[in-house]
Amino acid sequence: MSGRITVAGLGPGAEGLITPEAQAALQQATDIIGYGPYVARIAARPGLNLHGSDNRVELDRARHALELAATGARVVIVSSGDPGVFAMASALFEELEGWTGPVPDIRILPGITAMLAAAARAGAPLGHDFCAINLSDNLKPFSLIEKRLRHAARGDFAMAFYNPRSASRPHQFARVLEILREECEPNRLIIFARAISTPDESLRSVTLDQATPEMADMRTVVLVGNSATRRIGPWIYTPRHAEVE
Amino acid sequence: MSGRITVAGLGPGAEGLITPEAQAALQQATDIIGYGPYVARIAARPGLNLHGSDNRVELDRARHALELAATGARVVIVSSGDPGVFAMASALFEELEGWTGPVPDIRILPGITAMLAAAARAGAPLGHDFCAINLSDNLKPFSLIEKRLRHAARGDFAMAFYNPRSASRPHQFARVLEILREECEPNRLIIFARAISTPDESLRSVTLDQATPEMADMRTVVLVGNSATRRIGPWIYTPRHAEVE
Repeated sequence: MSGRITVAGLGPGAEGLITPEAQAALQQATDIIGYGPYVARIAARPGLNLHGSDNRVELDRARHALELAATGARVVIVSSGDPGVFAMASALFEELEGWTGPVPDIRILPGITAMLAAAARAGAPLGHDFCAINLSDNLKPFSLIEKRLRHAARGDFAMAFYNPRSASRPHQFARVLEILREECEPNRLIIFARAISTPDESLRSVTLDQATPEMADMRTVVLVGNSATRRIGPWIYTPRHAEVE
Repeated sequence: MSGRITVAGLGPGAEGLITPEAQAALQQATDIIGYGPYVARIAARPGLNLHGSDNRVELDRARHALELAATGARVVIVSSGDPGVFAMASALFEELEGWTGPVPDIRILPGITAMLAAAARAGAPLGHDFCAINLSDNLKPFSLIEKRLRHAARGDFAMAFYNPRSASRPHQFARVLEILREECEPNRLIIFARAISTPDESLRSVTLDQATPEMADMRTVVLVGNSATRRIGPWIYTPRHAEVE
């Protein structure tokens, strides 16, 4: 018999941001698969097998889930945030393309993605049309990232950047800031939201001319306002209306 | 004394997609404010005042919340989905700009936004860089919508459209499809996701050349894949990698 694979989003970190639907899937699982720190968020219990793995082995993880499901297991692949936003859902379907074993029942359960948790903490910077861009060039050329940044800026979209900076590519986010400075005015608002809803949470907002690459790391989501994004008191928000182009 | 305003996202419809954080805020509220059908989702209890209002009166609603909070009330403004995505959070800050009374404690609580619930049901169509665009021209000129559509298409972003079509502007989505046909190949995948996670849920996917305006209404979120978005079995997903521009 073939089992089931559920890909569940655990949200940005806080227990209060995990949906009841995802919690129920975790309760019914026989096996949990995911990046080690995410699997570590799941409480151990008898009959539950926890399979933490390293970063950047998404396709191995997906294959492992397919193999376990083929033996009848109820597998939950955990992602932080939402599994469909730069996370495990696409990786599972990529691996499924070459899979010749039994095809399991698959369910994708949405979660609170990092940009929306960050935006809520800051106010409402994504309150108008916006783009989400993964700045990692592990799986795409940087030229495509640059092209998308320029289109997003010229369309006056607000922007959310995932994976802005890592130890293995420290200079790239500096280049991203340069591109934004070519396209946007110096007082454009930028929010650096790190580890929102966890004990390590920090939130910092600056204007584009003040932004430096060191303000971001791999636990940071960067939000860039559109040309109308404003401060009011401690809050940053983007008005719903736009009068001009 | 000044009270508190919490703007909480109720998710797309199902109880299982409301976060525990939002549920806790609802439990502690003295007053719930929002669009009538959203307020109708809240169970009545002694000591809780429910204030449902009509559509398109977001600033009136925000002012009402500020007035109640000024008397010490613990107000929750409810939005469907996420309150920061084309919903009440920005409207509250807009109203706060002209507010001369006491400024309450304000918290924004994220929710599962419609595009992510829809994407999860379909597979992972937003698994790569994507844009979210509100197609209503109530608060912005259609020329700006057109400009953003063209930048999104030329940047090869996947797209999510909120408010694609209403009785008061039935022809506009037809024009959106025309613009997409000018910018994208005929076999680009489009998903019409209606009322996801509610009893009225429906999900339909077609290619761009097959799409018609009648496939969308105000309860529909429309997802458009990027040039690499594919079908596998009943699923639609966008690969994480991009080799070419």
